[in-house]
This record gives sequence, C-alpha cells and structure tokens, in this order.
Amino acid sequence: MGGGGMSEFRKDPLSNHWVIVAPNRAERPEQFDVGAIERSPGRCPFCRGHEDDTPAQTAAYSATGRLIQQGPWQVRIIPNKFPAVEDVRRERSQEHDFFHSRHGVGVHEVIVECPDHVTSFSHLNDQQVSLVFQAYRDRMAYWRADPRLAYAQIFKNSGATAGASLEHAHSQLIATPVVPTQIENELVRAEDYYRQHGGCVFCEMLRRELADPVRLVDQTEQYVAFCPFASQFPYETWILPRQHGSHFEFTEDGRLVGLAAMLRKILGCMERVLNDPGFNYLIHTAPFDSTHLRHYHWHVEILPRVSRTAGFEWGAGDYINTVTPEQAADVLRSAMEPGGS
Amino acid sequence: MGGGGMSEFRKDPLSNHWVIVAPNRAERPEQFDVGAIERSPGRCPFCRGHEDDTPAQTAAYSATGRLIQQGPWQVRIIPNKFPAVEDVRRERSQEHDFFHSRHGVGVHEVIVECPDHVTSFSHLNDQQVSLVFQAYRDRMAYWRADPRLAYAQIFKNSGATAGASLEHAHSQLIATPVVPTQIENELVRAEDYYRQHGGCVFCEMLRRELADPVRLVDQTEQYVAFCPFASQFPYETWILPRQHGSHFEFTEDGRLVGLAAMLRKILGCMERVLNDPGFNYLIHTAPFDSTHLRHYHWHVEILPRVSRTAGFEWGAGDYINTVTPEQAADVLRSAMEPGGS
Repeated sequence: MGGGGMSEFRKDPLSNHWVIVAPNRAERPEQFDVGAIERSPGRCPFCRGHEDDTPAQTAAYSATGRLIQQGPWQVRIIPNKFPAVEDVRRERSQEHDFFHSRHGVGVHEVIVECPDHVTSFSHLNDQQVSLVFQAYRDRMAYWRADPRLAYAQIFKNSGATAGASLEHAHSQLIATPVVPTQIENELVRAEDYYRQHGGCVFCEMLRRELADPVRLVDQTEQYVAFCPFASQFPYETWILPRQHGSHFEFTEDGRLVGLAAMLRKILGCMERVLNDPGFNYLIHTAPFDSTHLRHYHWHVEILPRVSRTAGFEWGAGDYINTVTPEQAADVLRSAMEPGGS
Repeated sequence: MGGGGMSEFRKDPLSNHWVIVAPNRAERPEQFDVGAIERSPGRCPFCRGHEDDTPAQTAAYSATGRLIQQGPWQVRIIPNKFPAVEDVRRERSQEHDFFHSRHGVGVHEVIVECPDHVTSFSHLNDQQVSLVFQAYRDRMAYWRADPRLAYAQIFKNSGATAGASLEHAHSQLIATPVVPTQIENELVRAEDYYRQHGGCVFCEMLRRELADPVRLVDQTEQYVAFCPFASQFPYETWILPRQHGSHFEFTEDGRLVGLAAMLRKILGCMERVLNDPGFNYLIHTAPFDSTHLRHYHWHVEILPRVSRTAGFEWGAGDYINTVTPEQAADVLRSAMEPGGS
C-alpha cells in the first residue's frame, strides 16, 4: 500500500460529477499496471484455504445459504484490501465556496462468489449464483441501516479489459454518503416522466420492448432481458423485473433465483458469441433514503467490454456504438442454449 | 466494410445521452479487435506516397501553412474511411413519442499531422505542431458555416489503450447536428454560475489555480496548464487560455503557436514520466450557433489512459482516481524540461 493519505470525494464544479480521489490504492503516483491480471490459482487469495491472505471476513454463507462464522463457506464477504472509500466513524466536512469536497467515508467490500478457483460466473451452478445474489441483497439491506450512507452500488469487473485484477469470480460493493451522479440523473428524469405521463418510464420501456421484440434477448415470468434502444456499448443488455419495484434490496429469495439464472445464461451466451469478452455488470437501484418509489425501477445492466472508449466519448459524453441493439439482440437470441429458461 | 446500414443518433430516454449507432464501422457484429494497432510503417496509409490508400483529401497544408491542392504536404485532411456519421445532404427525421432518434448526419475527418511516419505528437517540431492547430482551427471555422451542423469536436486518440488503430500521428474531427451532452451540461452550469456570480466559472478557476498553485503544471503569458481539482483520471491536465474566449475557432495564428508548443511540452513530459502512456486530448469549445459567450471558455483537456474505467464508473457515472491532482501536478512540474517555455 502506498503513501497515499485519506480518500476524498470531490465534486467537479462544471460537470457536477463526483470523483473519489483514493491515493492509497496506488503504489507510487507514476506507476500503473494497466490490464495486469493475477493468474496463479496457487496464490489466489480468494480460494478456500487462503483466507489469511485477505482482510478478516465480514460475513460468509454456507451451501444452504446460512450465515456462518466458520466451516466451509460458499460465498464470502471481505473488506477490499485497497478500498476506494474508508469505513471511518466520523466525517470531516470540507466544503468550500468554489471547490467542494468531503471526506471519503464509505464501505468497499468484495463478494467472493465461490470457494474453488472458478473464473467465470457462468460456470457456477444455479444454487451458487443464487447465493451470490442473496449476498448482494443482504449486504445492501445491511448497509441501508447505516445512517452515514446514501447508496450502495453492486458491480462486477470480469476480465482485464473490464478492470479486474484477480480472475477468481468476485464482485464488489461500494457504499457512499452521496448518491452517484448517474443514479441522481436517472431519478430526476424518471420522476419527470412520471409527472408527465402518470407511469414508470421503465415499465413503459418494458411494455414497448415486449410489444415489438426486435431488441428482446430473453424473458421469463419474472424477468425480461433486452438490448436497450440507445445502448452505449455493443451487446449492452439490461435485465428488468416485470413487477415494478424501486429497491433491489427488497427482492425475495424466490425472485433472486430467477434473476441469477437469467444473468448466468446471458453471460454464458456472450462468452460463446463474443469469444469470452471482459464485461461489467451492475445493479441500478433507488437510494437508501426512500422505500417505495413509483417512478424508479431497479435493474441489472450487463456491459461487455469489446470496444474502447476514446477521445470522442470522453469529450462529448456521448457514445459511438458499432453494433445496433437490434443486431446484438438477434445474435444473442440465436446463440441462446435451447431449453435454457 | 460490413453490411451495416446508415448511422443514426439515438437519445437514451433515461440518461439523456446521445449514442451514435454506426454499424458500418464493424466487419461483422460479433467481431472485435480491441486494442489492435497497425504498426507497419511500410503499409501506413497516412505516410506521404500512400495517398491513394485513403479517401481523396479534403484539404492539405504546405510547410508554410498555405492551403495546397498538390505538391509536398505537411498536414493533410481526409474523410474518415469508417465514418461514425455521414455527410449526406438531406436528413430524414425519425422522431417518435418514446424512442427518439435522428439520421446520423455529420462529418468525420482525419487530420494527418505529418508526412513521415512519426508516431508521437511530441516528436513533431514547433512549426509542425502549430500547423496541426491551424488545421484544427480552419476545419472548425469551415464547418461552422454549414447550417446542418451544431458542433465540431476535435480529438486525438494516441496508443491502443486510448482507442487508436493507426500509430501515425493523427487526430480527428466529428461534426454533428446535435451538441454533445457534456458540452450542453457545461454550458448550462457555466451559465448558471455566470448568473449567480457575474463572471466566467473558468476564469474564476484559473484565478484560483494561479493563486494557490498546488495543481499548476505550466504557464506562459497566454496559457495556463493545471490538473483540475476533480480530475477524473490520473494526470488529467487542462490547458486554458488566460484571455477569456468561448470559441476555439476564433483563435489567432499567434496564439495557436503558443498553445501547440505547450501541449507538445506537456505530452513529452507525460511520455517520460508515465512510460509512454496512451492518451486522448480534446478541445472543448462553444457551439456554432453562438458567437461570443461571456460564460463559456474554450480549453484543451489531456487525458492519459493509465487506468481503466470499470463497473463502478459505468454504473455510477462517477470516477475513482488513484492519484491526487496535487501529486500529479507535482510529478509533472518536476519532470518538465528546464528552459522549456
């Protein structure tokens, strides 16, 4: 760990974006290891038997989904060794008249998805992926009770192009005292839509994607997967619950099973079609300070990292996507395993 | 070229971002070549003598900065062979009640920065870099007169991690009938600031960065370079003209020389310190439909690509930066060549 100092949230006076300045994550300020991924199973800190190579666990689940203190775990939660935010008790405020910053309070956890050295979520079995989603839900519900925190984001980086540094299947949770800019924007726009049309914009999107299924990827009784109309990335795919709900952490066990199974199926399909691409997935959900929002609808976004964002994207804030969502959905549908869901 | 079809602007109903869906840029929808860069100088289409390997040139400059039709060129403008937008005369509008899209009208040009196979902007001489900036300015002024277009963005992708596919020094211009989301946001916020404080937010930023120079990288009589307070990326550096001006395309020759020299110096410094990183730079300027805005201030942003954006960034729209802007500025200042400017 480097000579970093504390992490800090800084607000850009122009874009209004938050930046988490987390200098403790880098060895030396001019050293970077872009795309390096540790591929030695024998030294993998996430494998069962290497528990001492990580910070002490926060929680662990047995194969039957019970929280356990010891014994054989199937899913394990640990603090991130190089946290972007810090779980400190008191916040020092640092507001200024022009440059706005605050102390980098928060929680950064790793969800280790299996005890063996499996490197792909799609290679886990149905029970295991359900357990992972149970852990997501439980951790989110747990941090919801912390009055310092406004939001928790669950995300996965898989593959070097997606920002992973370890290949053992894992995902992350970052909980912060601020609501992420993109969620804030979605909330504002979804509320606007509700005010104008008297309904949830996500429910309307679902209705349209089902009525004209050119972008549809998969559907079950509980969930619908499609490539969104304005996909930022080739093969970007969203999974929405059919039933309106604003908060992922209120999802019942039975519904987590179906979500995990659909995600696993789609990721497996992307691996076959796109030659095992790096990808991120993430859960968008409403902030902790609300309970049931009629205008927001939680969902999962899958972002394969098969293209690079370049100068245009960073300058414009807009995206160039070389595969139409309709083409992408068509390719994914054709490659779905028969009898999958 | 693939079986793509026409390109199209699509507006995301939630994020409000534009996506340019440009299917003609990909061979087949499931084939990608992430990070592949053509490194064969003998086959480089941008080298002098290989002019027939590119689309016919739009403009070219001699060593003295004259526009020429033939003879030895020093800077050459060509249409992009795989354009993200299309220079067609008539736009077919495709507005819907829910999903909003419009035809992908626009201009996508490549600025070839030198006739020899030089792969780094910093290795060009002072005269050559000035000529490149003259070309930027002239092309932007040219497209400003086209009533179909609202904005032109100039950007450079250098290195595979920054999205370049050819190593010969070049940059690009994409002009569109829509103002990019990020520029639109900056304009709204800068205007707000002006209304509240009676001054330009960028001028105020400059004043503060000079008064407490912890983030200062370089300065001359005409320009100031610093790492912004809420840098999204490690070593992100902005160059602002001291004199207020909203439109890059109104910059005089004499001022282009100083800008090009400072940019070259900073990029050379980053190459030494960060071990030749991929980077993007881009020009932020006001839209074509205005002439002199008191609240907007054009500037250049340099974004070294030494880190990867991952699930957190894509989900949150916020950034984790592992190097404080103060550290970054300190490293860059120490590495500046003595007697540079």
